[in-house]
Amino acid sequence: MAQKPSIPKGTRDFSPAEMMRRTYIFDTIKSVFRTYGFAPLETPSMENLSTLLGKYGDEGDKLLFKILNSGDYAAGLDDEQVRQASKICEKGLRYDLTVPFARYVVQHQNEISFPFKRYQVQPVWRADRPQKGRYREFYQCDVDVIGSRSLLNEVELIEIVERVFAKLKINVTLKMNNRKILYGIAEAIGHADKMMDITVAIDKLEKIGLDNVKAELAERGLEAEAIAKLQPILELCGTNAEKLAKLREVIGCSETGVKGIEEMEEIFGYVEKLGLQLPIELDLSLARGLNYYTGAIFEVKAMDYAIGSICGGGRYDDLTGIFGLPNTSGVGISFGADRIYDVMTGLDLFPEEVNFSTKVIFVNLGEEEQLASLKIIRTLRDKGVAAEIYPEAAKMKKQMEYANRRQIPYVVIIGSNELAERKATVKNMRSGEQCVVDFDAVATVIE
Amino acid sequence: MAQKPSIPKGTRDFSPAEMMRRTYIFDTIKSVFRTYGFAPLETPSMENLSTLLGKYGDEGDKLLFKILNSGDYAAGLDDEQVRQASKICEKGLRYDLTVPFARYVVQHQNEISFPFKRYQVQPVWRADRPQKGRYREFYQCDVDVIGSRSLLNEVELIEIVERVFAKLKINVTLKMNNRKILYGIAEAIGHADKMMDITVAIDKLEKIGLDNVKAELAERGLEAEAIAKLQPILELCGTNAEKLAKLREVIGCSETGVKGIEEMEEIFGYVEKLGLQLPIELDLSLARGLNYYTGAIFEVKAMDYAIGSICGGGRYDDLTGIFGLPNTSGVGISFGADRIYDVMTGLDLFPEEVNFSTKVIFVNLGEEEQLASLKIIRTLRDKGVAAEIYPEAAKMKKQMEYANRRQIPYVVIIGSNELAERKATVKNMRSGEQCVVDFDAVATVIE
Repeated sequence: MAQKPSIPKGTRDFSPAEMMRRTYIFDTIKSVFRTYGFAPLETPSMENLSTLLGKYGDEGDKLLFKILNSGDYAAGLDDEQVRQASKICEKGLRYDLTVPFARYVVQHQNEISFPFKRYQVQPVWRADRPQKGRYREFYQCDVDVIGSRSLLNEVELIEIVERVFAKLKINVTLKMNNRKILYGIAEAIGHADKMMDITVAIDKLEKIGLDNVKAELAERGLEAEAIAKLQPILELCGTNAEKLAKLREVIGCSETGVKGIEEMEEIFGYVEKLGLQLPIELDLSLARGLNYYTGAIFEVKAMDYAIGSICGGGRYDDLTGIFGLPNTSGVGISFGADRIYDVMTGLDLFPEEVNFSTKVIFVNLGEEEQLASLKIIRTLRDKGVAAEIYPEAAKMKKQMEYANRRQIPYVVIIGSNELAERKATVKNMRSGEQCVVDFDAVATVIE
Repeated sequence: MAQKPSIPKGTRDFSPAEMMRRTYIFDTIKSVFRTYGFAPLETPSMENLSTLLGKYGDEGDKLLFKILNSGDYAAGLDDEQVRQASKICEKGLRYDLTVPFARYVVQHQNEISFPFKRYQVQPVWRADRPQKGRYREFYQCDVDVIGSRSLLNEVELIEIVERVFAKLKINVTLKMNNRKILYGIAEAIGHADKMMDITVAIDKLEKIGLDNVKAELAERGLEAEAIAKLQPILELCGTNAEKLAKLREVIGCSETGVKGIEEMEEIFGYVEKLGLQLPIELDLSLARGLNYYTGAIFEVKAMDYAIGSICGGGRYDDLTGIFGLPNTSGVGISFGADRIYDVMTGLDLFPEEVNFSTKVIFVNLGEEEQLASLKIIRTLRDKGVAAEIYPEAAKMKKQMEYANRRQIPYVVIIGSNELAERKATVKNMRSGEQCVVDFDAVATVIE
């Protein structure tokens, strides 16, 4: 019985053309991670629900995909119990890479050499309502170092951002903030309790303007005096050093705030001394994952393409506490592969060689010619050149169309004339040019 | 509340040490696939249960991991319905890569250029009882070409087997059989209906001996005359060509059988003309997935390590029929990554560079030294060398222990003396040797 095949909503097939582009992105990112001494880690797709539940808020709990217990899941349960997911499901699909990483670190703490530098590139699943750009299965691409408070780790991550996007040829700006500075601002104006409100309001500055931000702050319960104190911060401009100097004037009374400023000064100091080219901007409106990060916060934006952040992260001081290992500070960032894919597609940044899986195809013109072709193909493959022969002696037109559709850049033709002279005709499918060379020389004309 | 963290039974965390080895295997296999013009494909982890159910037999259906519908899965269902998995689950986790591949080919048949050469390396999930070497989540590593009946495809897969295991340095034998020959044998002795029984009996020859096999065949309903006809086949020996010649004498009356012999002769002919070094053995007892394969059958065994088959596959003529696309022949093989891992670990075949994620670590001796180190590290990373600095100026002993535990082969020391002279001490941690070189020359002493 034939079924009309389809896939679950919010999921995707990745065709060879898409996969070659995605693989290029992942391979580039991973190769940079490795250059910095980060090692790969993989955790299971399924975690116990006890590991996942309560880690992503009430909303997150609802978005977990739960796996029905295998065997007779309803055996021994009364009707009411069968209606409770907690009774019939013990496992759920990974919702992000962070919680499984924390679980891994705690579970394997005695085998790990800290500081532990790991990267992890795996899919995650969320039962979100599918919509444009939001999928129920997508890859995350995380890099973290855990077990070190040194700001050199932040600097290393900044270098990774610089190197990854330089390799991908995407112009980016790195926006940075620091949770301690945000707390310092709130504390300095006498509203340590309102850090979140203040940050949310600052975040709207560009969109709604200074006066409206002030009105919103008043609405959120800040008195005029506090708002007046905030004014210099809302008007902050200049270089990062100038911003930090101005900030120090305003929030110097907050010990935490000063600590945050010093952290940023140290980080920016290294960036300058090492001669990094990446544009970095201190952006006080950056509030990414605020209830989670405790120090530096990162966010990367593409400069030539309008899309949200394509990479982000920060310093956290208690990732593993929930699993019983307190005081283990770490810092990490995550690359958004889907958005990077969109930017690179939109700006046509993929290199030519990502467009084809085969570099050269030999036309199949019969048994004798085929054997000669296969022998040359073997030597090409020895050199790492992706080569193949059309598997049947089909019509020339059909074979050329196949080469075209697959965007194969070179076609080699060995007919009976060529065979007699041990020569091959090599056609460059981009330029249309062709030349005749000795069997041995085929490799040399394929750039 | 601290929980004792754990993972679901039958699943695994892959530590960096394991991941580096696994990555080496996968990267090697994929690089060979690409050399043959195969392109990557990925399908979603979840498929509709309607896609999966009924494809793996009753036992397989039971082993599917089912995903609870998101939202209020029990809403509007009576108690009896809630007890039926089919009412509360619409999706299941991928059980293998073959059915999703067939689904993909049918769903996207108008976008695909046939013959379609794809490889796919993704995890699959089975609710099997966990036991040694059997996991509930494991990777499959498939390569198939679909839409071509040419035996060159079989030859190409044989070349892939040769090249992959040569690269991995595993000595293997490729065992081959052909479903048409098995049918021909059954037909020739007048028992076309008993192909499976005959194959199962032949399979036991080595274990139980000729007499017992004959007894078993009699038990399975073959009369003495038929068993006598089978005798020459049970005693088949010699080269593949000799075996095929003998077979032709016995089963020449079966059209299908002769077709199978001719297929094998053509395949072995190419293998010889191309000068393949891989040992290939015609093995009539090979019955892998018999109700599924229609032509050549492959199985690869490691010669120096006792473990089951580490790679296998065959030709199928109706993979996509179940989804409404009949008569699409294909051939493929699948590499068993877990077993290959075990063989390589057992025989100590992993190359040295798979044992460490960082090639060189700089000891951190304070702020000035650190900056000089970071600048050298940047140039090493530019050259693709995995390099790092210990992120804090901790005690020398602690830093050296860290380098040791992570098996980092080179340690660079820049203390105040070295800094003054712009020299670095480079220590080879394997040999214990060390030398002092100019800052610029660090890269040159790290092989």
